[in-house]
Amino acid sequence: MTGTGSGSGTGSTSIVIRIEMTKDLVTFGQIATAIGDAGGDVVAIDVAQSSKAKTIRDITVQVSDHQQSDHVVSAVSKLEGIQVIHVSDQTFLIHLGGKIEIMPKVPIKNRDDLSRVYTPGVARVCMAIHEDPKKAYTLTIKRNTVAVVSDGSAVLGLGNIGPEAAMPVMEGKAMLFKQMADVDAFPICLDTQSTEEIIQIVKALAPTFGGINLEDISSPRCFEIEQRLIEELNIPVFHDDQHGTAVVLLAGLLNAVKVVGKELNRCKVVVCGIGAAGIACTKMLLAAGVVNIVGVDREGAIVRGASYSNSAWQWYADHTNPERLNGTLGDVISGADIFIGLSGPKVLGVEDVKKMAQDPIVFAMANPTPEISPEEAEPYVRVMATGRSDYPNQINNVLCFPGLFRGVLDCRASRITEEMKLAAASAIASVVSDEELNEYYIIPSVFNQMVVEKVREAVISAAYQSGVARRNKGWEVAKEVAVLSSSGEFA
Amino acid sequence: MTGTGSGSGTGSTSIVIRIEMTKDLVTFGQIATAIGDAGGDVVAIDVAQSSKAKTIRDITVQVSDHQQSDHVVSAVSKLEGIQVIHVSDQTFLIHLGGKIEIMPKVPIKNRDDLSRVYTPGVARVCMAIHEDPKKAYTLTIKRNTVAVVSDGSAVLGLGNIGPEAAMPVMEGKAMLFKQMADVDAFPICLDTQSTEEIIQIVKALAPTFGGINLEDISSPRCFEIEQRLIEELNIPVFHDDQHGTAVVLLAGLLNAVKVVGKELNRCKVVVCGIGAAGIACTKMLLAAGVVNIVGVDREGAIVRGASYSNSAWQWYADHTNPERLNGTLGDVISGADIFIGLSGPKVLGVEDVKKMAQDPIVFAMANPTPEISPEEAEPYVRVMATGRSDYPNQINNVLCFPGLFRGVLDCRASRITEEMKLAAASAIASVVSDEELNEYYIIPSVFNQMVVEKVREAVISAAYQSGVARRNKGWEVAKEVAVLSSSGEFA
Repeated sequence: MTGTGSGSGTGSTSIVIRIEMTKDLVTFGQIATAIGDAGGDVVAIDVAQSSKAKTIRDITVQVSDHQQSDHVVSAVSKLEGIQVIHVSDQTFLIHLGGKIEIMPKVPIKNRDDLSRVYTPGVARVCMAIHEDPKKAYTLTIKRNTVAVVSDGSAVLGLGNIGPEAAMPVMEGKAMLFKQMADVDAFPICLDTQSTEEIIQIVKALAPTFGGINLEDISSPRCFEIEQRLIEELNIPVFHDDQHGTAVVLLAGLLNAVKVVGKELNRCKVVVCGIGAAGIACTKMLLAAGVVNIVGVDREGAIVRGASYSNSAWQWYADHTNPERLNGTLGDVISGADIFIGLSGPKVLGVEDVKKMAQDPIVFAMANPTPEISPEEAEPYVRVMATGRSDYPNQINNVLCFPGLFRGVLDCRASRITEEMKLAAASAIASVVSDEELNEYYIIPSVFNQMVVEKVREAVISAAYQSGVARRNKGWEVAKEVAVLSSSGEFA
Repeated sequence: MTGTGSGSGTGSTSIVIRIEMTKDLVTFGQIATAIGDAGGDVVAIDVAQSSKAKTIRDITVQVSDHQQSDHVVSAVSKLEGIQVIHVSDQTFLIHLGGKIEIMPKVPIKNRDDLSRVYTPGVARVCMAIHEDPKKAYTLTIKRNTVAVVSDGSAVLGLGNIGPEAAMPVMEGKAMLFKQMADVDAFPICLDTQSTEEIIQIVKALAPTFGGINLEDISSPRCFEIEQRLIEELNIPVFHDDQHGTAVVLLAGLLNAVKVVGKELNRCKVVVCGIGAAGIACTKMLLAAGVVNIVGVDREGAIVRGASYSNSAWQWYADHTNPERLNGTLGDVISGADIFIGLSGPKVLGVEDVKKMAQDPIVFAMANPTPEISPEEAEPYVRVMATGRSDYPNQINNVLCFPGLFRGVLDCRASRITEEMKLAAASAIASVVSDEELNEYYIIPSVFNQMVVEKVREAVISAAYQSGVARRNKGWEVAKEVAVLSSSGEFA
């Protein structure tokens, strides 16, 4: 996924301080007093362990903010006979033991149930699939299950932190898949960063799944991994950091140009940061009909006609910058209608914004610090979007992946086409009605319940038009669903 | 897993007949009459699809047995204007869409929740694991999650039916893991049968999991796959078809010899069928102190001192048959106290049983048809066990794997030692009290709720004795559990 987002102002919160008390040296009264004096409220006390001389207790304390938390912990640790073992906050507590679990859909209450879901009854179901592998879609979890696969090489903005450390992100994503779109998603973090191995492993995992969501795999490896898997598998493969971002970005742009009364395909767009997400966003814009796109990276504009050793940049040079603009971001931004930032903090200056065309649209999506702060940009920009939740117009992948995968699973798409991504973007944009649309509301909230259903419908419709949907429609579905076991096995 | 078990007598059941009716030609009244005349009861009618001329309906019918089901379906299909699209029974219906789902442990109700389980809050949790990978055990699903991995090469008694067709078994196993022992298990069926690839893939999957349950992988590949993974991973790896069977078999034998008043280590044991399970059972018996074991396969006894091209058999020859017995099963069975069958139907004759020592113990575990039928053996055998649920003394792996993995996860064992398996066997046996113990009750029911807890305790205790448990005990646990995020991060 892209970026780490930003902190949300949570206000009052609680922390759990685990302390080891030496009974002879300190009383709980002294501890409670110290906490109270430092501004904390003791909410609960739990004894974790106790011996003759010592006790380990968990003290839950309500505090107003981080600073007060520090005060409280500091006051407690200064007491004689107290050792602060640890301070947990609610973010860590909610992660204890992981965030998802695997549940049976029905209980096994007796021998009869057991003989249906397991041996001997299950053998007939196995054989039905063996005779017709398509039945895996009706008789196994494949129909509703997606793998969220990462190698931990580019996690959030944290970099290459490895597979174990990437798990909490993938688990969080699995939670969102289920809650938002009833998709069963399982997180798989691989202990390899070899492109070939990852391709081979994901191919081998495919029988269990109806789709593959690649996540947080570093560029340029992510391109080959995704491309090869799309070619070699018959289930959809989607690198969310690239295409999820691109879909939601396009959704925002569709509405942003509406606000300023421009036509997207006539706009001059400057894309800053030509990594995986920047390239995916550019491809999406090209697919949407935008012609005049100029890419800029650290070394300046990527120029049509020039040669690049990085093959992704060579592709970029061959497909963008029709006016062969040269120079820095400050040079090429002149007259641009739209700035799209997928780079780093404070790359875009106020002077640059001033050079843009009338009614500039700035999508500054670097996380946690955008290319330009909304406060600085405000006086000069007409529509502004970021990746952050604490400003208006958050470009958040959560708007795309749940509904997209709900759609591809429901129509059993073999792949995700450009048309399906474009349809998803339009669907997200359409959730904001013309009456509601304004500079500060170009994209729906991630909690807007219409988003998943709209995206799902649009994706399914586009999948049938693209010819990649494998589930029969209408009358045929009724017949097909019924064909659970050929020749009506009954034993 | 071993064998397909046997059918349980379910008595009355219901079927769902999906029919296409041509409205001009037939009325529902005619259909209901036909079903009633054939002995079925119409329980429900659902319209799946309807057009002007035709309707697709699901008719749920209560029937008393398979024969009546055939009568009913046959009667309906003879009607003019009816096409029977499909007949589903409850086993197929319960598999619709798969048998497990992936659930968030807590709902994401608002922006605050989202910022804790996903970005931006999750980043701190990721970094805590990155700094200390052991924290994956407290902060991710690793603590409670097992992979059930198969390549579909030896599923039940069905053979090499492939990964898609193996899924229903692995899903069933995941259900049992959760319901019986609150272990989260995820089924992974691999689209490769290369030994090296499977080893490499499971190693790459390991960061997500606290243990690996290998399942239904054919012999002899299963030996190398398991052995290499045990050596190269630091989480427990357990091929249930081998060791689960061996543990439960030993549990049964411990009680069987008690019934007949013999000492297990003085018994002569004949093992018939020297495949993966036969070899694992033999190793378990050797570890339990049995000395006189004679293995027999299709070509007769495996003889100490002889040479075998099959390396597993060579190992077997080197470690069993101290009396160097030669010949067929009929030859070596003379004077045997115990027969263990892991071979095929009807391999053991009544004449063979008659040659055994006094109070013969026969474990005929071939599925679905045992080496000798309990009815035939009854007059000559003192204690008889099978793999079937419709006879007394069922040797069923379900008695072992839930409690075993519950135990290894709870103490964070790095591997499963012989001592832990022996402890699990004793624990299962101990559930049957001396007062309850008799020829027809040597092993507890799979629904006996004491089994998991007893096995868990025994496995944990043995793991600490074996030095493979990595979770600190007692006082230290209280400290360690608290160490969620080092240095008390709070943001």
